[in-house]
Amino acid sequence: MTAQITVLAGDYIGPEIMAAGLKVLAAVSEGQNFDYQLHEMPFGGAGIDQAGDPLPAEALQTAQKSDAILLAAIGGPKWDGAPKTPEQGLLAIRKALNLFANIRPTEISPAMQKYSPIKNTEPVDFVIVRELTSGIYFGQPRETTSEYALDTMRYTNQEIERITRVAFDMAMKRRKHVTLVDKANVLDTSKLWRKIVAQIATEYPAVTYDTSYVDAASMKIIASPSQFDVILTENLFGDILSDEAAQITGSLGTIPSMSRGSNGPSLYEPIHGSAPDIAGQGIANPISMVKSVAMMLTHSFDRADLAKQISDAVDATVESGVVTPDLGGNATTDEMTSAIINHI
Amino acid sequence: MTAQITVLAGDYIGPEIMAAGLKVLAAVSEGQNFDYQLHEMPFGGAGIDQAGDPLPAEALQTAQKSDAILLAAIGGPKWDGAPKTPEQGLLAIRKALNLFANIRPTEISPAMQKYSPIKNTEPVDFVIVRELTSGIYFGQPRETTSEYALDTMRYTNQEIERITRVAFDMAMKRRKHVTLVDKANVLDTSKLWRKIVAQIATEYPAVTYDTSYVDAASMKIIASPSQFDVILTENLFGDILSDEAAQITGSLGTIPSMSRGSNGPSLYEPIHGSAPDIAGQGIANPISMVKSVAMMLTHSFDRADLAKQISDAVDATVESGVVTPDLGGNATTDEMTSAIINHI
Ligand SMILES: CC(C)[C@H](C(=O)O)[C@@H](O)C(=O)O
Ligand SMILES: CC(C)[C@H](C(=O)O)[C@@H](O)C(=O)O
Repeated sequence: MTAQITVLAGDYIGPEIMAAGLKVLAAVSEGQNFDYQLHEMPFGGAGIDQAGDPLPAEALQTAQKSDAILLAAIGGPKWDGAPKTPEQGLLAIRKALNLFANIRPTEISPAMQKYSPIKNTEPVDFVIVRELTSGIYFGQPRETTSEYALDTMRYTNQEIERITRVAFDMAMKRRKHVTLVDKANVLDTSKLWRKIVAQIATEYPAVTYDTSYVDAASMKIIASPSQFDVILTENLFGDILSDEAAQITGSLGTIPSMSRGSNGPSLYEPIHGSAPDIAGQGIANPISMVKSVAMMLTHSFDRADLAKQISDAVDATVESGVVTPDLGGNATTDEMTSAIINHI
Repeated sequence: MTAQITVLAGDYIGPEIMAAGLKVLAAVSEGQNFDYQLHEMPFGGAGIDQAGDPLPAEALQTAQKSDAILLAAIGGPKWDGAPKTPEQGLLAIRKALNLFANIRPTEISPAMQKYSPIKNTEPVDFVIVRELTSGIYFGQPRETTSEYALDTMRYTNQEIERITRVAFDMAMKRRKHVTLVDKANVLDTSKLWRKIVAQIATEYPAVTYDTSYVDAASMKIIASPSQFDVILTENLFGDILSDEAAQITGSLGTIPSMSRGSNGPSLYEPIHGSAPDIAGQGIANPISMVKSVAMMLTHSFDRADLAKQISDAVDATVESGVVTPDLGGNATTDEMTSAIINHI
């Protein structure tokens, strides 16, 4: 069986790091009985430019029929004020493929410690499980009049249940600790989250379950990030906290993410954006994209063996000092990618 | 004229730090031609216990008639699951007194640098201007059924305008830089904020005005906090970011805040909570309350001279090492308060 992979390179540094990710995929799968076919499609700003839509119909159909989706990065000043924005393509593909669970690892390993902007020296290793297709991102009504504007944060029981199970299942394979982050002292939706998550928690007696208000969580991520294992939260809080969490690693350019539904293809992408300021210079850090490829191999194709080869090669490369400027080195994207491939 | 001050000591460490703040107020005003009268009222959990309501009618009336309000801290496990919570008292007094502007300073002075959990070594000095009486905290409808729950984030033009003027007026007295934090790539309310704030910005040509998405702002507060002067934002984003900002100082126990309306009394309080874990031990850091008193003297009573005496005394005390355990010392609340008073 040949793995069908949709490739959405996107904008600015997107194509640069996607090229790196695909080279590593080619190298790691050579002679390993992993056959795949790539389907490159315009998306984001590139979708607008090439097909008049950030999520062109053909790109969506291709994605729907594939086994997994690799996305690099989208957006940028070129489409500021455009009638349709690149970001709308991202929201649309999440919704169309029902990618309700966004999974973002935050790790500070001893080797990466020096890049972290925080003084904390304990190892940090947690995962944010962010609900991705509901809440205030999609709630109706949303309305703008000449006098006011409004957005609606809305969650159904079922939407909360399914993401909660993702978080607890994940905790069972990790350190068995789930922290629900909400604002239950103010919001009705948060009170519903507390109620439903508490119910489901009883099905996982092995998992320690606690809660934190979102404002307190934003402090703990800086003050004591080692306390977290799995953070479960709604869409908007997850957006804010996962970026904050990424920042404490000090190496945004190294973090992959996965978005998945109940079935159908999952989507893998770096957590950072399209970095217009460094685009075209060939100096973007390829690690986030390379690790997105590794995440895909593990979760969509059950090839944790290949993923491990990739992450070992990335570690070896970082240790050897062949790193891009964001990590204090002077390697180009190509040089770093070649170094990773040499370590495979 | 005698200044009328409502005193809401609240819960757990609340009364301990309030006592410290009032001692410093007494000391600094002695012989300084500043006469005042205190009106102590139950509020928060204490309001529930003593009058069956977190904001008893008498407390509200007293607050309304006074010139300024000092609040220490409210809430705690004792009222978990109570039909009315201490926090509802806080939301109610904000709304009743129309305290739409919450002002929270974030400073890392060279002397406090060592307490900061971040490696950044540049001086940090910014202010968050948070809208406090609208947005998703108060928007209607809010609804919970057997199938779903919803909250409404709603802003009128006028609500955005008045808080925007507070932020720009403040910037004029500082480094003349306002950053609007929003999620205008997703939310209709944020798009309205962008539109209105941009209009008002044209009235302040001397002020540099820029914008940041809230997720990016949560990174910048860690990565480059020195870039900010005045951050202007809506209620929920302000809640999360101001706690994050407080955390990067590493000394939560030292930060005051002010909440004000267009007219009527302003309210001054520490940004931290009631710290049930250390209540009753006499070791709570009094600085946040003492600085709240100083902020009151400046903003409600035009006595910046007395406020400066207080903050100089606080600095001298910290430098002398007479500090509570949260700052690494072993002084009690009383000892630290006496040291502050001795320096006045
Ligand atoms: C681009 C934006 C709409 C998006 C979001 O808010 O979800 C991004 O910040 C993310 O986290 O993937
Ligand atoms: C206690 C809570 C309702 C309150 C808020 O969210 O506004 C608090 O976190 C604050 O920031 O003053």
